Amino acid sequence: MSQLFPYDQLFSFTKRIFIKIGCSETDAELATKTLLSADLRGVDSHGVARLSGYVRLWEAKRVNAKPAIKIIHETPSTAVVDGDSGLGLVVAPFSMQVAIDKAKEVGTGWVSVQNSNHFGIAACHAMMALEHDMIGIAMTNASALVAPTFSTERLLGTNPICVVIPGGTEPAFVADLATTTAANGKLEILQRKSMHAPTGWIQDKDGNSSTNPHELKGGGALLPLGGDRDHGSHKGYALGAVVDIFSAILSGANYGPWVPPFPAYVPMPENMPGKGIGHFFGAMRIDAFRPAGEFKMHMDQWIKRFRGAKTVDGHESVLIPGDPEREAEQERIQNGIPLLHAVIDDLKYLGEKFDETGI
Amino acid sequence: MSQLFPYDQLFSFTKRIFIKIGCSETDAELATKTLLSADLRGVDSHGVARLSGYVRLWEAKRVNAKPAIKIIHETPSTAVVDGDSGLGLVVAPFSMQVAIDKAKEVGTGWVSVQNSNHFGIAACHAMMALEHDMIGIAMTNASALVAPTFSTERLLGTNPICVVIPGGTEPAFVADLATTTAANGKLEILQRKSMHAPTGWIQDKDGNSSTNPHELKGGGALLPLGGDRDHGSHKGYALGAVVDIFSAILSGANYGPWVPPFPAYVPMPENMPGKGIGHFFGAMRIDAFRPAGEFKMHMDQWIKRFRGAKTVDGHESVLIPGDPEREAEQERIQNGIPLLHAVIDDLKYLGEKFDETGI
Repeated sequence: MSQLFPYDQLFSFTKRIFIKIGCSETDAELATKTLLSADLRGVDSHGVARLSGYVRLWEAKRVNAKPAIKIIHETPSTAVVDGDSGLGLVVAPFSMQVAIDKAKEVGTGWVSVQNSNHFGIAACHAMMALEHDMIGIAMTNASALVAPTFSTERLLGTNPICVVIPGGTEPAFVADLATTTAANGKLEILQRKSMHAPTGWIQDKDGNSSTNPHELKGGGALLPLGGDRDHGSHKGYALGAVVDIFSAILSGANYGPWVPPFPAYVPMPENMPGKGIGHFFGAMRIDAFRPAGEFKMHMDQWIKRFRGAKTVDGHESVLIPGDPEREAEQERIQNGIPLLHAVIDDLKYLGEKFDETGI
Repeated sequence: MSQLFPYDQLFSFTKRIFIKIGCSETDAELATKTLLSADLRGVDSHGVARLSGYVRLWEAKRVNAKPAIKIIHETPSTAVVDGDSGLGLVVAPFSMQVAIDKAKEVGTGWVSVQNSNHFGIAACHAMMALEHDMIGIAMTNASALVAPTFSTERLLGTNPICVVIPGGTEPAFVADLATTTAANGKLEILQRKSMHAPTGWIQDKDGNSSTNPHELKGGGALLPLGGDRDHGSHKGYALGAVVDIFSAILSGANYGPWVPPFPAYVPMPENMPGKGIGHFFGAMRIDAFRPAGEFKMHMDQWIKRFRGAKTVDGHESVLIPGDPEREAEQERIQNGIPLLHAVIDDLKYLGEKFDETGI
């Protein structure tokens, strides 16, 4: 069902497509690196499989390939960035760099972003902090697929939160989580395999629990982390709401049910209160709190204690957030990135359209 | 099973007990205000019911009633505070004020705290930000009751995260959530009522799902938000881990299984890597991002849209985080705070011990 492609081959092809839609050489390279970081880390739903989706947004004039990204307001530790409708894949690294630069000066930096588009995986941006011995934070809102507790309406996106923390000899702690029970990509996998979803992932249009992975097409919704009220869905809802507010109400982007959809064929919401979609980034310099060496020594002790914990039968070890994605990356750099035939066909179609070969 | 007490009566009694253990007038007043904010907001497990627990920690010389709380490291936007083994009820407001003062200067303030004790409810501290038109954040680690995904060992506390966001004409958004499916206080209620817990709240000592609310006494554990891997428990675990690391590894407090227990009769862990328990506070000035008036107008629109969403049959409206606690506060200020007889007996015993009347 899938075929392996070397990273370099996908990189070269993807970059050329971004150049063909009008990106500068630098932006095309950056967008490609960001997009493919998802494929490397095993988050197949957010990688090159979405390239044609980004192109369609550009065709619909919802993505500006030559954005003038700029800071529109700032203090020593904060900024608001206007992404000028650019690819989130480019706007996000710009904004995370602003957060890092501010952290260098005053200890921490916090950047809210308006007028952007989907930014790929949050971890890619937050991890920029690591080489500076900083903690990195990234979040984004997204179009509404999630029903808050007791709601039949979809009002929130899957709104991920990513927190990245440097280790010493141990690899970094990388938590990157949608604030839903399951990310939309997991539903898509069940749809392709004609399998049912576990209870607690989705509800039907009336708010009844459902296991049908196609439920969203009939007006159903993804559920916040927790699933239902008894299992803490009000907490997942609150976390998704915080992501929405930090990303969009602090910046002046669209929020709640007004966030623009990723598929270009879905009409834009009416009476939109802001510009584009919103992100939020943070960087905290470790030595703004204590010497980085001391911190990392304790971080290593934390990681070793958790990884070495006694396990439930059938599990080899307790995982540290980021372990599975790091292993996927090592394996895929070596052996290539598996693409489904549907994705390959999609890329071939893009190649023909833009007169590019290589897939 | 319970009896109502006016807030002022509980305030006067509690303050006198704190003075009797050696707190200054100012600290006793602050500690009382913090502690009783839990009773007012309906979080009965964290309020005056814990007064005798704090006294026992003082008797065990684990709480210093006259702490010299001080900043031991700082940058323009960050600080580390040493709580000098003081009551968390006093150390936390001091530290949150430091965060607020830094936010006034450079836009945001972030404070990690070592050498503290339990601080009551997180919301009480985070809400200090509201009168300054700031977003407030508070979190704390706590002694280990929670098993990470795939672990049979308890390595994390219920580690709450609180985020408070000002509204305009609407009341503030106040999300205050343990990073577990259910807080420990909810188990205690089930124990008293001899009821079973829903699946997904607890596991037994071998990591099997359990509905027995007494399971923790036999080596079982609370479960991270999500409950099991299929329902996202790795996300709840990651969030609880972030709280632990921000609160304790940034500050130099104890973390993971080494966090000191609240009950004074439980022995301290061996080979503790830090000092006391840890907290983390943040304050972000709204107008460090955009004018506060603009922000609040959109926040009101957000709140109204969510509150007015179509609901699942049987529910009147979608709740905004903080709604139930605000309603409890209005009701209890009016009618008094209900205390269980076991709590009343406990307070009477304290009164006799310290020669104080009023309960």
